[in-house]
Amino acid sequence: MLECKAWKINFNKFFSIKEESKEELLMGMTMSQKILAAHAGLSEVKAGQLIEADLDLVLGNDITSPVAINEMKKIDKQTVFDKDKIALVMDHFIPNKDIKSAENCKCCREFACRHEITNYFDVGDMGIEHALLPEKGLVVAGDAMIGADSHTCTYGALGAFSTGVGSTDMAAAMVTGKAWFKVPSAIKFELVGKPGKWVSGKDVILHIIGMIGVDGALYKSMEFTGEGVKNLTMDDRFTICNMAIEAGGKNGIFPVDEQTVAYLKEHSKRDFKVYEADPDAEYDATYVIDLSELKPTVSFPHLPSNTRTIDNVGDVKIDQSVIGSCTNGRIDDMRVAAEILKGRKVAKNVRCIVIPATQAIYLQAMREGLLEIFVEAGAIVSTPTCGPCLGGYMGILAAGERCISTTNRNFVGRMGHVDSEVYLASPAVAAASAVTGKISCPCELD
Amino acid sequence: MLECKAWKINFNKFFSIKEESKEELLMGMTMSQKILAAHAGLSEVKAGQLIEADLDLVLGNDITSPVAINEMKKIDKQTVFDKDKIALVMDHFIPNKDIKSAENCKCCREFACRHEITNYFDVGDMGIEHALLPEKGLVVAGDAMIGADSHTCTYGALGAFSTGVGSTDMAAAMVTGKAWFKVPSAIKFELVGKPGKWVSGKDVILHIIGMIGVDGALYKSMEFTGEGVKNLTMDDRFTICNMAIEAGGKNGIFPVDEQTVAYLKEHSKRDFKVYEADPDAEYDATYVIDLSELKPTVSFPHLPSNTRTIDNVGDVKIDQSVIGSCTNGRIDDMRVAAEILKGRKVAKNVRCIVIPATQAIYLQAMREGLLEIFVEAGAIVSTPTCGPCLGGYMGILAAGERCISTTNRNFVGRMGHVDSEVYLASPAVAAASAVTGKISCPCELD
Repeated sequence: MLECKAWKINFNKFFSIKEESKEELLMGMTMSQKILAAHAGLSEVKAGQLIEADLDLVLGNDITSPVAINEMKKIDKQTVFDKDKIALVMDHFIPNKDIKSAENCKCCREFACRHEITNYFDVGDMGIEHALLPEKGLVVAGDAMIGADSHTCTYGALGAFSTGVGSTDMAAAMVTGKAWFKVPSAIKFELVGKPGKWVSGKDVILHIIGMIGVDGALYKSMEFTGEGVKNLTMDDRFTICNMAIEAGGKNGIFPVDEQTVAYLKEHSKRDFKVYEADPDAEYDATYVIDLSELKPTVSFPHLPSNTRTIDNVGDVKIDQSVIGSCTNGRIDDMRVAAEILKGRKVAKNVRCIVIPATQAIYLQAMREGLLEIFVEAGAIVSTPTCGPCLGGYMGILAAGERCISTTNRNFVGRMGHVDSEVYLASPAVAAASAVTGKISCPCELD
Repeated sequence: MLECKAWKINFNKFFSIKEESKEELLMGMTMSQKILAAHAGLSEVKAGQLIEADLDLVLGNDITSPVAINEMKKIDKQTVFDKDKIALVMDHFIPNKDIKSAENCKCCREFACRHEITNYFDVGDMGIEHALLPEKGLVVAGDAMIGADSHTCTYGALGAFSTGVGSTDMAAAMVTGKAWFKVPSAIKFELVGKPGKWVSGKDVILHIIGMIGVDGALYKSMEFTGEGVKNLTMDDRFTICNMAIEAGGKNGIFPVDEQTVAYLKEHSKRDFKVYEADPDAEYDATYVIDLSELKPTVSFPHLPSNTRTIDNVGDVKIDQSVIGSCTNGRIDDMRVAAEILKGRKVAKNVRCIVIPATQAIYLQAMREGLLEIFVEAGAIVSTPTCGPCLGGYMGILAAGERCISTTNRNFVGRMGHVDSEVYLASPAVAAASAVTGKISCPCELD
């Protein structure tokens, strides 16, 4: 924990020198800053300040946890800070893709057993981490948590501060229950209006990333607010926060409203705490986004920021359509895809792969008849997994192949061969494209 | 086709020399011999004779077809003999596991497109080849067919002669529509009686392999007959013929009865032809097997012949249970597994992976509520694939892990690490074991 010592020095220095001008320095705090301050035992924090915060949860998956477990062995203490506040989610390569992934899961399983980790998830009771944790009620409003996975920023949808870290930070946090942060400044996204038919949270975030770029929110909080928030479902908000990292954001966060409270009460028994940004909170920039003006949006290769609205995509034939991932594998996503695929057929020569993000979503979708619709349409339904999103398995692309995908990254070679292409879009666009065989708006099917 | 020329010489020599003693030489033919004779345009054949037979179907999968396609390029003729009589089934690694498998499928897809192959199956309209072909009505009684996959012997359940070949034979057959065979001798398995509760086709064939060994039927036909046949479902018979190769058999074959005819009429529009073994057909051996005396049977590592009846398995804890494959992924298998898992839970620390063998079986199982039972029990349901059976993906074992599996081979390292173990059993035993966490008879759950 050398880093922790380093920031403690800075922290003390900051307070001893600046004591007299504290009022001037400390303006109102953003929502993220307030959560961080509370978890650092401080009444106030400021952007750029280094703090050490108590964590409500430490998350790892089957790729990052084995590295963290190995790092933990190098630390003097071999016990975890709280067996109930660590979540290990096997999701990237399960059921195991190969011997390497089998050994990784075995490592996690044995660690979980040895330390009696309460929240260990494996084949059976499983799902993609960022869909699973909210569903299991493991993250609630007001929490501060880290995860050794870049899309850990998802939980901001619940009014929590959450961010992705490396495996070594995860290791330290499993032992200490703490993590250091440089308090982020923020960008405010004021949402107004109501999205039209076929416009979802995915289109909102792709529009934003297209607007500000993949480094547009570098190390900043992306704080969503405004009267338009109420027109976004919880699943929309998860999708939006999930991709904050694709704009370089430290975290994404939504205010807690009636929908959030209803979600929290349905899924968690834990108490939650509502934080609101101060009226005079400082933002590096403010964007007003009229949701009613957005169109279905597609990120062309090879950056999420390379966006075009659906009316400007041209004629792009596809070989595969993937509907799933921590970004878009939730029940809303399954429902909209089924609405489009019902009574229709996936185009010849197109492989359509639907991946419900958790077993609960899978079961719900089955009970609602959605999975039957998918199979009747000629799509297939995978077990919950990150799979193709990261080029793991379950739909890897050959050279020259194109995939429309509801996942979150379309970097070169992300889903397979370096000469393959990934186009990011909403479940609605991915489903419609599966039917037509080229990137299409669902409105074209009417 | 050098081999063909070679056997033609032998064949002519045989007939010219032996003409005078033909009656003496040619005894009655087995069922397999009769089908081969008909397809070679001969009235009679004898064990050991080399013949060239016309084929009703040539099969390849995503592993073997690319090799065959490459071999075909070396042959002068670049056209296929009949675009309706070639089946290319992507099943081992789809949706694609990695770039290599993606490139293999792409190779097959392009070949199928170029030659307008009618029966090309990919993500969507897909399944494990040996479950898919009968379902699609592509093999019927009286057919002679080859497939570049060792479990091609499965179709004997329909009263067809079918056997596995290498990719080069597949290549030659795709061009010529013919294959050479050394006419096999046969072993007769006379089945009597009716199997008890929890005894299925899998137990019958494991019992037989345990009895005669993995080379007990080397290059011989395994001809099943007797009044007990009527007590075996079509799915039982597919399972039994499927594993003929595990006793070294050239093929397995069942007589055509009312059940077979009903199956054929339900699934195929093709005419079929019923062949029966001559009453004086010669068999190398005859075994009488009383089905009523069989018990659930398990093959211990590392050979299918290393069998024990369920009352003699002892205390064998398991980490994983796989219910699926070309051997046991059919609707009967899904039903018996669901019967056992209904209202029960998969044991903690056991991963239970159910793999319906085709999309049609998947859909049927979903409509019957079986998939819901699996998920509620804590099992997961995979897309149709060979997957873990061959150590492909979707459930690979780490060192020291044990799996009970309804698949067909338990060789060292078959499902993953060389230090892992596979125990072969029926879906009933695999499901019961998933519940108890150790190899168990379903009767223990009552």
